[in-house]
Amino acid sequence: MNKKTIAIDMDGVLADFESQLLEHYNTAYGTSLTKESIQGLSEDEAFKDRDLLVKVLNKDNFFRSLPVMPDAIESVRELQKNFEIFIVSAATEFPVSLAEKVAWLAEHFPFIKWENIVLCGSKRIIKTDYLIDDHCKNLDYCIGKPIMFTAFHNINKTHHLRVNNWKEAVAVLNETL
Amino acid sequence: MNKKTIAIDMDGVLADFESQLLEHYNTAYGTSLTKESIQGLSEDEAFKDRDLLVKVLNKDNFFRSLPVMPDAIESVRELQKNFEIFIVSAATEFPVSLAEKVAWLAEHFPFIKWENIVLCGSKRIIKTDYLIDDHCKNLDYCIGKPIMFTAFHNINKTHHLRVNNWKEAVAVLNETL
Repeated sequence: MNKKTIAIDMDGVLADFESQLLEHYNTAYGTSLTKESIQGLSEDEAFKDRDLLVKVLNKDNFFRSLPVMPDAIESVRELQKNFEIFIVSAATEFPVSLAEKVAWLAEHFPFIKWENIVLCGSKRIIKTDYLIDDHCKNLDYCIGKPIMFTAFHNINKTHHLRVNNWKEAVAVLNETL
Repeated sequence: MNKKTIAIDMDGVLADFESQLLEHYNTAYGTSLTKESIQGLSEDEAFKDRDLLVKVLNKDNFFRSLPVMPDAIESVRELQKNFEIFIVSAATEFPVSLAEKVAWLAEHFPFIKWENIVLCGSKRIIKTDYLIDDHCKNLDYCIGKPIMFTAFHNINKTHHLRVNNWKEAVAVLNETL
């Protein structure tokens, strides 16, 4: 029988987008936002200057140098034993990020083949059994079962199954086997 | 009611990949392959030196400078009236192509938003009502109804609904309304 499929988001799930964005945005804007100070805010509320945000995200090397989330590598490798894994990132808004994301995956997740990488816009047409993502804009409209990965902007959302870290994600998914 | 969705391939469907590849491959290899001489051959049979092929496809500007297929722009615009259009290109094998494909679409198809662009590997998890593509490796495994766009490598394949050009594609799809 074919393995069940999982689509896994990159920013905020595999990659620690939040830390890197805080650092780069604070440097560019002269603010001193912290992980604590943005808890429960939307991205727009936390990073108010949208033009600056876009500029930061379009900088060479921003996505290429993102830190890996704790336990992400071992967890995805573990899940790959029993599931087919697709990496699905909403990336076409930021063209500079595209090749950087593929290179980042090749470095940190070399066991993910190019065939299983999807750089897209809307995730509405991605058909997998599960989607692990931090954004309601993706989770609310996905075809498979949504699994919400905790991030500052979703801590007050309660309408999806939540996992707080990669160990919880593996436990939840392995329970479905 | 939501519009039905169409996934449209880029190389060989929106973009005249064949002409550009013949020109670049012949220049690099000293061969004189023509559109006529490769009819009915697979890509591997037509372009025998796989390493050279990969080198050609990884060159800066190869994908950015592809000619647009005849009637493609007007046809996609016409289809957009009654369908939601997604551009779905198997591109993650060639990272250089990723940003070039987005820029190419922005130039020639500015009416396609970034949300509707998918750069992927396998198209098995793309769920649209139709897929217009030239490759059986995509058409054979797609979730929606496959529509085969004629290309040198598929002229002897008879197991999918075939369209020979963009005018035929529009006619076939508008008939489904």
